[in-house]
Amino acid sequence: MDKFKITFLPDNKTVEVEKGITLLSAAISAGIHINSSCGGDGVCGRCKVILKKGQAVSLPTGRISAEERKKGYHLSCLSVAQSDLEVEVPAESRLDSGTLAKDDAHMLRLKGIFSEPEDTDKGDSILGENIFIHSPLASKLYLDLPKPNLEDKISDLERLYRQIRSLQDLPVLQTGLSNIRRLGELLRSSDWKITATLGKRNGTTEIVILEPGDTSKRNFGFAFDIGTTTICGQLIDLNTKKILGTKAAYNKQASYGSDVITRIIFAQGTDGLEKLHHAVIDEMNLMIQELTRENNIDLNDVTCCLCAGNTTMMHLLLRVDPTYIRREPYVPTANFIPVVRAYEAGIKINPRGLLACVPGISSYVGGDITAGVLACGMDKTEKLSLLIDIGTNGEIVLGSKDWLIACAASAGPAFEGSGVTCGMRASRGAIQKVKINPETFEVTYSTILDTPASGVCGSGYIDAIAELLRAGIIDRGGKFDPKLIHRRIREGEYGREFVLAFKEGLGTTVDLIVNEMDIENIKRAKGAIYAASAMLVNHMGFGFNDLEQVYIGGGFGTYVDMPNAIFIGLLPDLPREKFVFVGNSSLVGARQILLSHEAIMDADEIAKKITYFELSVEPGYMDEYMASLFFPHTDLSKFPSVTGKKSSP
Amino acid sequence: MDKFKITFLPDNKTVEVEKGITLLSAAISAGIHINSSCGGDGVCGRCKVILKKGQAVSLPTGRISAEERKKGYHLSCLSVAQSDLEVEVPAESRLDSGTLAKDDAHMLRLKGIFSEPEDTDKGDSILGENIFIHSPLASKLYLDLPKPNLEDKISDLERLYRQIRSLQDLPVLQTGLSNIRRLGELLRSSDWKITATLGKRNGTTEIVILEPGDTSKRNFGFAFDIGTTTICGQLIDLNTKKILGTKAAYNKQASYGSDVITRIIFAQGTDGLEKLHHAVIDEMNLMIQELTRENNIDLNDVTCCLCAGNTTMMHLLLRVDPTYIRREPYVPTANFIPVVRAYEAGIKINPRGLLACVPGISSYVGGDITAGVLACGMDKTEKLSLLIDIGTNGEIVLGSKDWLIACAASAGPAFEGSGVTCGMRASRGAIQKVKINPETFEVTYSTILDTPASGVCGSGYIDAIAELLRAGIIDRGGKFDPKLIHRRIREGEYGREFVLAFKEGLGTTVDLIVNEMDIENIKRAKGAIYAASAMLVNHMGFGFNDLEQVYIGGGFGTYVDMPNAIFIGLLPDLPREKFVFVGNSSLVGARQILLSHEAIMDADEIAKKITYFELSVEPGYMDEYMASLFFPHTDLSKFPSVTGKKSSP
Repeated sequence: MDKFKITFLPDNKTVEVEKGITLLSAAISAGIHINSSCGGDGVCGRCKVILKKGQAVSLPTGRISAEERKKGYHLSCLSVAQSDLEVEVPAESRLDSGTLAKDDAHMLRLKGIFSEPEDTDKGDSILGENIFIHSPLASKLYLDLPKPNLEDKISDLERLYRQIRSLQDLPVLQTGLSNIRRLGELLRSSDWKITATLGKRNGTTEIVILEPGDTSKRNFGFAFDIGTTTICGQLIDLNTKKILGTKAAYNKQASYGSDVITRIIFAQGTDGLEKLHHAVIDEMNLMIQELTRENNIDLNDVTCCLCAGNTTMMHLLLRVDPTYIRREPYVPTANFIPVVRAYEAGIKINPRGLLACVPGISSYVGGDITAGVLACGMDKTEKLSLLIDIGTNGEIVLGSKDWLIACAASAGPAFEGSGVTCGMRASRGAIQKVKINPETFEVTYSTILDTPASGVCGSGYIDAIAELLRAGIIDRGGKFDPKLIHRRIREGEYGREFVLAFKEGLGTTVDLIVNEMDIENIKRAKGAIYAASAMLVNHMGFGFNDLEQVYIGGGFGTYVDMPNAIFIGLLPDLPREKFVFVGNSSLVGARQILLSHEAIMDADEIAKKITYFELSVEPGYMDEYMASLFFPHTDLSKFPSVTGKKSSP
Repeated sequence: MDKFKITFLPDNKTVEVEKGITLLSAAISAGIHINSSCGGDGVCGRCKVILKKGQAVSLPTGRISAEERKKGYHLSCLSVAQSDLEVEVPAESRLDSGTLAKDDAHMLRLKGIFSEPEDTDKGDSILGENIFIHSPLASKLYLDLPKPNLEDKISDLERLYRQIRSLQDLPVLQTGLSNIRRLGELLRSSDWKITATLGKRNGTTEIVILEPGDTSKRNFGFAFDIGTTTICGQLIDLNTKKILGTKAAYNKQASYGSDVITRIIFAQGTDGLEKLHHAVIDEMNLMIQELTRENNIDLNDVTCCLCAGNTTMMHLLLRVDPTYIRREPYVPTANFIPVVRAYEAGIKINPRGLLACVPGISSYVGGDITAGVLACGMDKTEKLSLLIDIGTNGEIVLGSKDWLIACAASAGPAFEGSGVTCGMRASRGAIQKVKINPETFEVTYSTILDTPASGVCGSGYIDAIAELLRAGIIDRGGKFDPKLIHRRIREGEYGREFVLAFKEGLGTTVDLIVNEMDIENIKRAKGAIYAASAMLVNHMGFGFNDLEQVYIGGGFGTYVDMPNAIFIGLLPDLPREKFVFVGNSSLVGARQILLSHEAIMDADEIAKKITYFELSVEPGYMDEYMASLFFPHTDLSKFPSVTGKKSSP
């Protein structure tokens, strides 16, 4: 069989592949993750690469313009090599991975709900301690055991149990053979001074790790939010509860499909589940390695991981077949997943360290929502509250301490900066705030960390569309006014577009624009979320005005401009003070559960308490959704403050 | 490096070894287990082989007679090859392995304590059901789960838990990732009809195995008694409690040393622990394979194993370093060993099957004694009882339902047929009863299963010595009367000897004899046990006459002749009706624990309740032991019935 060498630039990574293998597959083999929302079906047009040397042949596609074709652009999923190749992967086709700067980490903090203690001098933050008793998933206990003598001859293991029980009330205590095998030598070589890591496992306590000497000061864990589009990982000092670092990266599973349904279908193919599993695990392991290296922490001192994510993400993380999630009656294999050893799922921390997953509610409302409810404290308040978690799936929870109900709406990844032309995750250089002068159409914007703009994040798009509406550049349907002529308005490949930032001085290869396709995407996303919220509130016999508190979660920029979010019809038209932006509430909840056994039990209660409301079979949902496909809505009476303000900037 | 090929006969197995490797090591490499009580130190003289072809060189030894040397005898532990060799391993040097016939299995039944139900038509026996509730270590539960529908959408795992809990009250239910990974497909491909194996693990219940369809009728387990010299394994139908078969074999660890101390020392050498571990595991796996094959049982239907044994045996079984057992203050690594997966210890049953060990008391009183006490019900009776378990270590337990105390005495393996010239395990062909005509010195004997005699087991030696004493052939010190001349009395290599059975017609290559060295061995063994019993009883302020019940355990023949055991001074001189011969009480107890969770809890209680009495530091023990080195004792007033009967047959 013929084989070709394909070198990917700018990484300069070369792989040898058999004839007939697509360039997308070759890139994956080379460890380069290319965006591929449609899962390699040639539909989404996100996986463009530029052929620099050699011959390749492609299936026909409408996703490459004539101009692009001249420059050597190919859709990598439709192209196969005819010779050795050199291929460039442009930045816009790339699924990047990156660290949030220290300051960026603050975006992930839950604002406005808890009184946060002042940051320490290291700039780290402490969260959650006001709510739950500090008792992490894995805790270290230093033990100075009395040495055996002829009067005290109980065995080493019983001695260890006795000492632990003299310090903690633990009726069911377990340990494994590998610890027992090391125990005799360990105790004697360490002069009976050892550190036991105690893990909470499904109603029992396990002696997870035994180490010589006192290592109790070095106990670290990871909280993860595994989103369909974005993975966030956070390194926590389990003793001090400090956040030592946070990273976010696109979920590399996007190479195999942009939403959970595409990925479940992909999982059913040959090695599909394995590939999806590795895509997430590899990214998590990379974050773990980088964050521990940056903080000079030994991987063996990382004793546990706590993951929140939607139900499909949890299945893929654990390499559990997600097939039945999308087959009627839509039943996942497990919502409550027992605590397992992290290595069983391929996560590389201490080989005996633990992995716990936040319990989920149903196939389409997962543990990320349980964690979000926990973080917001919705289950503890008398107030009628709504949580809107804006991710690739939008999940909505309504209720109070007495009852909770949730539904899910497929919003797409637009608010996470995916599936939109210049979208990017809310990280360094993302345009997060936009103002457009309604007279001159000139733009002022700010970026995260005030570095040169390299893309637009969710909050930037919300602002941009609100401002385009206010300036009359687009109409309530999202179409550009065809009469306007301005250097920032032009015809692009996907309809008219508005230039937010010209490439000069930015270091990007393209102008940062918003086009009609992007606006359409955002409109559908906000419409799905608004319609779902409305349906859920109405289903329970309430109106939006009955809500006492509305929590907005999601990985936007530093904050979402609530008036603008209302202006475009993403959020209901309620007084500003009812809204609380909670950021990545799933990650906050995961961290709380990592840090407190009380929170673990609380999460179990929440997951059991939440009723799932199936939106797709609900009569009227489609009408509500269609009515929401306007800015802000076809029924303007629902947005009195917007209507009143429409013409003012 | 030179290599030589060594072929062992009659097995005709060849191994290639490097120059300098002893023939004993070569035999082990070839899978042939040679007796080596001293652990290869050239002391015991048990590892003789006959050189048939080739050149070997040996270190000097007094253990090979001139006559033997002429015949080509070498001590395998002291000999190395100088060329390719052919070496015969004579039967007497061999550690054999064998099945007990169906009828032999009855020897292992506990007699005289429980009313045993009649054997079924298959000749199997049922035990223990009168005492403990039937709830085996692993039980199978057939589940016909309601299929999910839009009204009942809980996840597969929660559905499984719900169904199990509708049938059993199990608050803490666990399962592992591998079961979860299979669950979705398993449930659907089996039309929601599956069998769950539920295992009891340290206070929780684990879903150990999941299988399609109804396999609940096929659930089997093994009970093992792992003795220093003998391993007994028993296949049990966990549903019916029937014993399907029993096997016994010498513990192949004897190749590395005859007692626990020698083996602990061997374990400290290179690969020592590994070798000892494999010696026991390999034998157990062989028994498991043979018994399942004979009963046409799939290994996957064997879901658990329960092992009783002394503390060192349990450490070696689990590959736990036993070093500290023999270092002051004599502390084992674990007495209470958690339930683990059998494969973790190398035992080949269902890969997810469980292994439990009966909890032990101290370094020198192990779980075999806990099991024995359980089997005898000593912990449940008001009666002051004594259990004397006669094995390579003799363990003695005294007490009642209110208190229990135990000690251990190093008896040596003589009563198990090891370390004595013609000794063999109590199995087919072993001389088990002996009568000697005091006038003619002619012998009548019976063998187990009435097959031609091939050796002498423990009860045979007890009878033989009692009869030699009664006939005046030996004196109370164990020395032959030098004046007697008889065709059965002759001078042998190790002093005078008495021929119990001439080889003609027997199929053995040698006459079956008892010599002065054997008598000395038996005398020391019985002396150690008697002295320990006396010390323990006196320590608690009692005399033997205070005992209301005396249980005698051990792998003798079908039964021990109690009057003869008293006659030689092994047992105290008490009315015959106070004695109960309980056979292998460790195996009986292990089986009860395998079959009942109530018995597991009882065993834990017993192990916690028993106080260990350290004999070796007790003033007066050595005096008592020395005084016991006569038949029956130096102080004849302790044996009035014997003294009165001494001259009558």
